[in-house]
Amino acid sequence: MICTNGKKVLESSECDAVYTSCEYLLRYITGFAAEDGCAIVDKNGTTLCTDKRYIEAAEKVLKGTDVTPIVYSQADALEKLSAYDRVGISFKETSHVEYLALEKAGANLVDIDEKLERATAVKNDWELAQIAKACEIAEDAFLELLPAIEEGMTETEVAALLEYNMRKRGAQGLSFETIVAFGAHAAVPHHETGAAKLKFGDEILIDFGCRVNGYCSDITRTFLFGDDGKHEDFKKAYNAVLTAHELVKKNLKSGMTCCEGDAIARDYLEAQGYGKLFTHSLGHGIGLNVHEYPYLSPKRSDVLTDGMVFSDEPGVYVAGEYGIRIEDTVTLKNGKIESFMSKTDRNLIILKK
Amino acid sequence: MICTNGKKVLESSECDAVYTSCEYLLRYITGFAAEDGCAIVDKNGTTLCTDKRYIEAAEKVLKGTDVTPIVYSQADALEKLSAYDRVGISFKETSHVEYLALEKAGANLVDIDEKLERATAVKNDWELAQIAKACEIAEDAFLELLPAIEEGMTETEVAALLEYNMRKRGAQGLSFETIVAFGAHAAVPHHETGAAKLKFGDEILIDFGCRVNGYCSDITRTFLFGDDGKHEDFKKAYNAVLTAHELVKKNLKSGMTCCEGDAIARDYLEAQGYGKLFTHSLGHGIGLNVHEYPYLSPKRSDVLTDGMVFSDEPGVYVAGEYGIRIEDTVTLKNGKIESFMSKTDRNLIILKK
Repeated sequence: MICTNGKKVLESSECDAVYTSCEYLLRYITGFAAEDGCAIVDKNGTTLCTDKRYIEAAEKVLKGTDVTPIVYSQADALEKLSAYDRVGISFKETSHVEYLALEKAGANLVDIDEKLERATAVKNDWELAQIAKACEIAEDAFLELLPAIEEGMTETEVAALLEYNMRKRGAQGLSFETIVAFGAHAAVPHHETGAAKLKFGDEILIDFGCRVNGYCSDITRTFLFGDDGKHEDFKKAYNAVLTAHELVKKNLKSGMTCCEGDAIARDYLEAQGYGKLFTHSLGHGIGLNVHEYPYLSPKRSDVLTDGMVFSDEPGVYVAGEYGIRIEDTVTLKNGKIESFMSKTDRNLIILKK
Repeated sequence: MICTNGKKVLESSECDAVYTSCEYLLRYITGFAAEDGCAIVDKNGTTLCTDKRYIEAAEKVLKGTDVTPIVYSQADALEKLSAYDRVGISFKETSHVEYLALEKAGANLVDIDEKLERATAVKNDWELAQIAKACEIAEDAFLELLPAIEEGMTETEVAALLEYNMRKRGAQGLSFETIVAFGAHAAVPHHETGAAKLKFGDEILIDFGCRVNGYCSDITRTFLFGDDGKHEDFKKAYNAVLTAHELVKKNLKSGMTCCEGDAIARDYLEAQGYGKLFTHSLGHGIGLNVHEYPYLSPKRSDVLTDGMVFSDEPGVYVAGEYGIRIEDTVTLKNGKIESFMSKTDRNLIILKK
């Protein structure tokens, strides 16, 4: 039922031990979700140092794994670290305060951020199954939401209902704050969901996702709440974004670089005259973090490989008028893109005919 | 509509400038919620460095304040810092990677964590109003939940409904993952809400909260779903926890230390024979973080003062049997405790008679 990755992390680190107190890395390494605590991985297995609030649950969950939970203070754990030649830590996920404490404890610290982000980017079958479940819940929740959307609802009310639909299906929580944007609000890629009321003819952009065992889904759909005949430009742009989205699914292959992946969408949108309106990157890695390595940006040349999970989310934004984003969570399998989204339509939905 | 605290932070820091890229400190200092970016405060005001995704919204929100939003990379921002004699940063909220970048940029860095936690602990009227609103929403959501609880619902379904009730009232999100624990699950203070089904006679413990403009509420209620006549010990312990909770409200005064506050509940519970079963601290500060300074623990001697907001949450836990926690979010005003919770009963509720 759980998955521990201590061995994988230690091997990729090229160190004698790996230490972390970062919440998502703790979960990745030990398979157990503790808000507080730390873990030390060495060749003998993983020790999860936690407090008495968590120990009972940890012992139950971790029975039969290579992880041993103990009630142990962080200070005690740090003292163990001077015994190793090289202790790998994430410099990104270690606060400067903790770094100073580790240094004081005599640990010989090695930054393993690059190795960690590459190791965590490639998902195993268990991880892919969690992400698939998180995507399925998100899609089912969205399909239940659509017929419940009514004129006069606020952005927040729509978000609340969508989140409820996800939670009652067993999602543990959200991947991020749900974005619901009506009308021209959709032109702001990171619009803060608010009290705007839905009117006939509004476009609706919803960017959302949920978590299953910590793993995220991420999906965006853009649609119309009635067609008031004023959406000619919107529809033209929608078709361009949709084509860009589908071209990525068709043409992105394992072995390509991030910028090559991004260029599939960007080149097409540029050719259609939307280049300057596609104001962000094509996508980002998705796992225990909703934004993680790899970043499918024009500036990144990292190679995309089988087992990686990321978003395919081209967009076009015209300030004060409209915004369009179509996003699936996808993975690379046998060299090709497979989408986790199979239930929701990517063709333009017009809710009120 | 918003509140900027750059001036307060700079004054408390005793530095020439304060720098942060930490999300909650960015919100505290600038009044604007940006996921990415950084801020520099100096005697001339605050500069919010953000990217083009946020600039439009930031300019709108920050008009007329002492905060100037600009599109600026973090690298560019760091270069400015060498011009100051002393740059205050939070060592806790700065990753070691960022610390190295700040150091490389030639900034003379000063740790202002203690000053920051003390400054943020004392809330102004605007902040108290946000917390009051977050508490009101939480209570109203709970009152709407109670009659909807039915036999056979799962912990997750109850949590989903409660969260929906908060979100549809305008809560921006949760303070933390809602804890719903049925029966003996309540004995685990940090139980992970799951698929357990509600039975007649179960106790229910719910620990929850939501956010308004980033500020948190935190509340726990413990009650019975029907009385099957097997709750004698539970009821005795409930009354002890309730008395401890109320004694804190009555006797905790501004000027007392954290351990003195904790002792009000602890001494009473010890006298009643529950000392060893009260396995955590009395409370924690609440603000933009749901757990922050001050910590009302037997180990802390910090002084509690007017304007601080914290939890009053004594508890008693018997593994495998029951768990009880009664928690309000409270503040100190004119030397005395005022609770933000006025609507929900602290006396034992028995849902199904």
